[in-house]
Amino acid sequence: MNIVILAAGMGKRMQSALPKVLHPIAGKPLLAHVVDAARQLHPTTLTIVYGHGGNIVRERLPETDLQWAKQEPQLGTGHAVQQAVPQLNDAVPTLVLYGDVPLTKAATLQTLVATAGNDKLALLTQVLADPTGYGRIVRDSSTGNIQRIVEQKDATDTEKAITETNTGILVAPTPALKRWLAGLSNQNAQGEYYLTDIVSAAVADGVPVVASHPNAEWETLGVNSKVQLAELERLHQQNLARALLEQGVTLADPARIDIRGQLNCAREVFIDVGCVFEGTVSVDEGAQIGPYCVIKNATIGAGVKLAAYTHIEDATVGSASVIGPFARLRPGTQLAEDVHIGNFVEVKNSQIAAHSKANHLAYVGDADVGSRVNIGAGTITCNYDGANKFRTIIEDDVFIGSDSQLVAPVRVGAGATLGAGTTLTKDAPAGQLTVSRSKQISIEGWQRPVKIKK
Amino acid sequence: MNIVILAAGMGKRMQSALPKVLHPIAGKPLLAHVVDAARQLHPTTLTIVYGHGGNIVRERLPETDLQWAKQEPQLGTGHAVQQAVPQLNDAVPTLVLYGDVPLTKAATLQTLVATAGNDKLALLTQVLADPTGYGRIVRDSSTGNIQRIVEQKDATDTEKAITETNTGILVAPTPALKRWLAGLSNQNAQGEYYLTDIVSAAVADGVPVVASHPNAEWETLGVNSKVQLAELERLHQQNLARALLEQGVTLADPARIDIRGQLNCAREVFIDVGCVFEGTVSVDEGAQIGPYCVIKNATIGAGVKLAAYTHIEDATVGSASVIGPFARLRPGTQLAEDVHIGNFVEVKNSQIAAHSKANHLAYVGDADVGSRVNIGAGTITCNYDGANKFRTIIEDDVFIGSDSQLVAPVRVGAGATLGAGTTLTKDAPAGQLTVSRSKQISIEGWQRPVKIKK
Amino acid sequence: MNIVILAAGMGKRMQSALPKVLHPIAGKPLLAHVVDAARQLHPTTLTIVYGHGGNIVRERLPETDLQWAKQEPQLGTGHAVQQAVPQLNDAVPTLVLYGDVPLTKAATLQTLVATAGNDKLALLTQVLADPTGYGRIVRDSSTGNIQRIVEQKDATDTEKAITETNTGILVAPTPALKRWLAGLSNQNAQGEYYLTDIVSAAVADGVPVVASHPNAEWETLGVNSKVQLAELERLHQQNLARALLEQGVTLADPARIDIRGQLNCAREVFIDVGCVFEGTVSVDEGAQIGPYCVIKNATIGAGVKLAAYTHIEDATVGSASVIGPFARLRPGTQLAEDVHIGNFVEVKNSQIAAHSKANHLAYVGDADVGSRVNIGAGTITCNYDGANKFRTIIEDDVFIGSDSQLVAPVRVGAGATLGAGTTLTKDAPAGQLTVSRSKQISIEGWQRPVKIKK
Repeated sequence: MNIVILAAGMGKRMQSALPKVLHPIAGKPLLAHVVDAARQLHPTTLTIVYGHGGNIVRERLPETDLQWAKQEPQLGTGHAVQQAVPQLNDAVPTLVLYGDVPLTKAATLQTLVATAGNDKLALLTQVLADPTGYGRIVRDSSTGNIQRIVEQKDATDTEKAITETNTGILVAPTPALKRWLAGLSNQNAQGEYYLTDIVSAAVADGVPVVASHPNAEWETLGVNSKVQLAELERLHQQNLARALLEQGVTLADPARIDIRGQLNCAREVFIDVGCVFEGTVSVDEGAQIGPYCVIKNATIGAGVKLAAYTHIEDATVGSASVIGPFARLRPGTQLAEDVHIGNFVEVKNSQIAAHSKANHLAYVGDADVGSRVNIGAGTITCNYDGANKFRTIIEDDVFIGSDSQLVAPVRVGAGATLGAGTTLTKDAPAGQLTVSRSKQISIEGWQRPVKIKK
Repeated sequence: MNIVILAAGMGKRMQSALPKVLHPIAGKPLLAHVVDAARQLHPTTLTIVYGHGGNIVRERLPETDLQWAKQEPQLGTGHAVQQAVPQLNDAVPTLVLYGDVPLTKAATLQTLVATAGNDKLALLTQVLADPTGYGRIVRDSSTGNIQRIVEQKDATDTEKAITETNTGILVAPTPALKRWLAGLSNQNAQGEYYLTDIVSAAVADGVPVVASHPNAEWETLGVNSKVQLAELERLHQQNLARALLEQGVTLADPARIDIRGQLNCAREVFIDVGCVFEGTVSVDEGAQIGPYCVIKNATIGAGVKLAAYTHIEDATVGSASVIGPFARLRPGTQLAEDVHIGNFVEVKNSQIAAHSKANHLAYVGDADVGSRVNIGAGTITCNYDGANKFRTIIEDDVFIGSDSQLVAPVRVGAGATLGAGTTLTKDAPAGQLTVSRSKQISIEGWQRPVKIKK
Repeated sequence: MNIVILAAGMGKRMQSALPKVLHPIAGKPLLAHVVDAARQLHPTTLTIVYGHGGNIVRERLPETDLQWAKQEPQLGTGHAVQQAVPQLNDAVPTLVLYGDVPLTKAATLQTLVATAGNDKLALLTQVLADPTGYGRIVRDSSTGNIQRIVEQKDATDTEKAITETNTGILVAPTPALKRWLAGLSNQNAQGEYYLTDIVSAAVADGVPVVASHPNAEWETLGVNSKVQLAELERLHQQNLARALLEQGVTLADPARIDIRGQLNCAREVFIDVGCVFEGTVSVDEGAQIGPYCVIKNATIGAGVKLAAYTHIEDATVGSASVIGPFARLRPGTQLAEDVHIGNFVEVKNSQIAAHSKANHLAYVGDADVGSRVNIGAGTITCNYDGANKFRTIIEDDVFIGSDSQLVAPVRVGAGATLGAGTTLTKDAPAGQLTVSRSKQISIEGWQRPVKIKK
């Protein structure tokens, strides 16, 4: 089929310079949600009708399977689809979607397309408990065929009682669609060309007008304001949380987890309250994620324990490792199995081999750390001289005394020990104790400072 | 008009030594919410009837526009208003409010006052889906005029079916009010003087009794317990969040933001989940507030990025600055534009000029830091000698090596470099490398400690 | 009475290797909730029927008051109770509970037992707004006596309209129960022995079948999936939060507190949003717990202030102490009154006496700290030599300069001062200044590194 996504609206009520369709749900633009659903239908053509903020929209969706049709000026939904007409392949029907209706399931659209077949106009309609404000689907009382759509303001009391409403999403035979679009009129209060008007054109043409429904009301909700954006964000997050629960993940509170990207969890995973996941995160079997962790683009190994407030970005955590609380793993961190990174420790662009530990108040940056290394509290790799960054090499079985500074480039040989407070400016030989230390002296009769009177 | 706020109740069910009206919603005493709404009506007189814990109440609201009337003993709402009679100006009507009903909108009260005019008794009434327990508003079936209020326990079945209920908030012509109050009787089960009884007195006097309604049910909810306090806190926070959304702020979750004071946001502001704002906080255009930030009395510049768990109090953050995660800005911190304060860094009572950075594990206290300064990991300004605090001056373009201690008072000249691990006790000359360092030595044949057998 | 808890089910839908009844609500296995409720009834015998993952189940509930009956294979609920028959004392009735129905109140069960007396079969039944799917309680229209239970699939339309439903929980006279169990048949679609079938046996025997109801619907909800586990977790947490509010604790948001164990609060306690409590935590009068604190097995003294993100485990905090933000108290921490532990400070297995402070970036481990001690920023107790841990003794009135390392075992005498950056390897004499420091030198004409071209 052809798919046309209408994405030209400005979204004035969003009160933002960003085009409406680029505002995110779960960290992804509304329009990208629609495009992703569309792609699951393997369309012959996939065209986005853009307008306001057009270049930004095109830049944010650079994929080459997308075709673009500019709508300028913007004279209604019918006019919008008209801009895409040159892209439409007559041999397949055309599905019209909306860039600000992000949560429609591909399966719902597939059903709609199947309902349309090659020769029918199929509308996606919703039966609503309270249909007020929506266009009502008027059906023939004997055949049940759709006859027309009547807007709220034009509806009789009988029509107002109809609970089946129009969502705007539809599938049409393409040659007929082109003909109907060409015949649209803008003789109405708004002076616009309405896509909805093709329904009466189809009826006039004797083309059957049929319908299918989505499974959930939220599938066809649109975003026109920040209030609605926040509502859909929550609905979507609830759906994501429920999907995790259904695949066996234990969540302390499904209302307090945020997933902005892809979270893949193996069996026996526990996620405590308030965690935020961004990008692609994999969590292997039996891992436990403590409360208020923020994790972006990471691989968390089997049996890992992340304590509260662990902050991870672009990092790999080996199996059985113990991280946090108050730990930060920055981009380029690769931890092997059974690594311990404790409180107030930052690791950046470093590899740490198995069974090594940095448990307290340390900065490990641009370092290659061997196995069974103990990095004492307060240790700092001085990786930056103000102009360049250099690497620190710490070989297996090293013991770094507390509060040492390792001025890179520098190497600590296997089995070496650094005394507490060492400033290491040259390589430390393997197996030896290396230290830079002044003599400890005590000054008798020394007087403490006293409070200065002001 | 005159405004009288009844605030004498003890609030036994609050189970607290703090007088009920001082318990906070959004960080502000219930009573202060009512006073703030009252002030928006520019009253001629504003009188608070106090009783239990009276002195504490008066101390917490020291503003001079408030008059105080003591009610002791406490013999009912009518008796309470009687205590305020000496303050009431006969030339204007009198509005009666309640110190434990915090969320009534000024606009709602304004409508009530307009409804009353100068010669009517106007009641604020609520139409409730379930009116059980509330006093019902009995109206004349032909004129629709209010005839009386009937309490739940005295109501016939027909009266119980009435859904319009009394809220207690009312406006009365002042001379009539004084007359009706004087005529109140305490011949009832509780032995109290009920303000509500003035309604029948007004009817008897031929004074029309009219009503207006608030827009929302929560506007007239009162607080009698911690359960109700928590409920109103949430309702109020929902309202505050919705107001932010409506003005264009993007909130990741409107149910997970707490605003205890005034939060002013410019355009294109994003606030992630779980943030807590206290006091007066301004957030300029395009700033992004990460998850779980706690921010009190702060100015956040345009384009600032606050990463997760940023803790700010009484500080200014210049535009385009990048703060956190795990950063703490304490009182007196003033950051110019493009300043970077990273993880496990504390800044206190310090000015940091543009483009300077302290990205890791540092304490910057009582310091004046120039532009383009790089403060290395583990740097500490030793501002306190046990008795006095002194300032550290770091001039432009300085590079402070990791783990340095700057023993104040001390100055680091422009362009100076401190070597890693330096204990700086005297000024460092501009442009030079300053260091205090022992020789690095290695000890051959050194044996590591072995586990002591116990 | 006898109590039998059925806990043999595998819980395939939980998608976990852990037996269903061991999955936790509020940090405690489902089965342990049921056992705790059962114990409140002081049963004569308390038998758990186990099966899948049986050994793990028995290991997790090692208490000696429990008897165990193995069900293998598992042929239905009636068959399960049959396994417990040898444990049942004929002189008292038998109560049947379910290991995956965790939230039934003891009072509800007590009422059911009282309803049964010694000679009746008493069913715990629920009247549900939507009874679809549940077995319906069919009563005699004239006597109101229960006649039978009809399952959804076998119900007539009239029976489907019945809103009283079976929960499975019941009390039976023990000799009769044994007789009825022996008579059960598995001639049904599933080929199982259903406990429910004893109802018709009782009716046939002329034993009166009576019922009582729980107060809340959630009391009889069971757990079959992670979705249901999360739902019950939230219901239970709401109940716990409401109980705290009712006893006078102020909660910023009852929907954002997690209690996994026992939280005991005195008067005037405030708990901000997002706190997690585990194990046994006591909070004394007037303590204030800031947002996002995580507290496990701790005693928090009167008037203590815990700032945001305070992380406490197995520790005691003395009255009027001020902790956090970003502080971590690890096991074995005992703080006396008025101790200040500030940001990025970790304390472990240490005693700190009154009025002492460690306000910034420090690690205090295995230390005994006296009164009025000031531990400077960046101070580290080097308690571990790679093989053994040693203690650090800091006597009263000591001032530890910033960035000092105290290499244990070491003692700092009363009133001693350590200069900034000291590496203390020998005891520091009382009252004196002790320091280990290199001469500060500056190098004229020194050139900064320049960016290396690659």
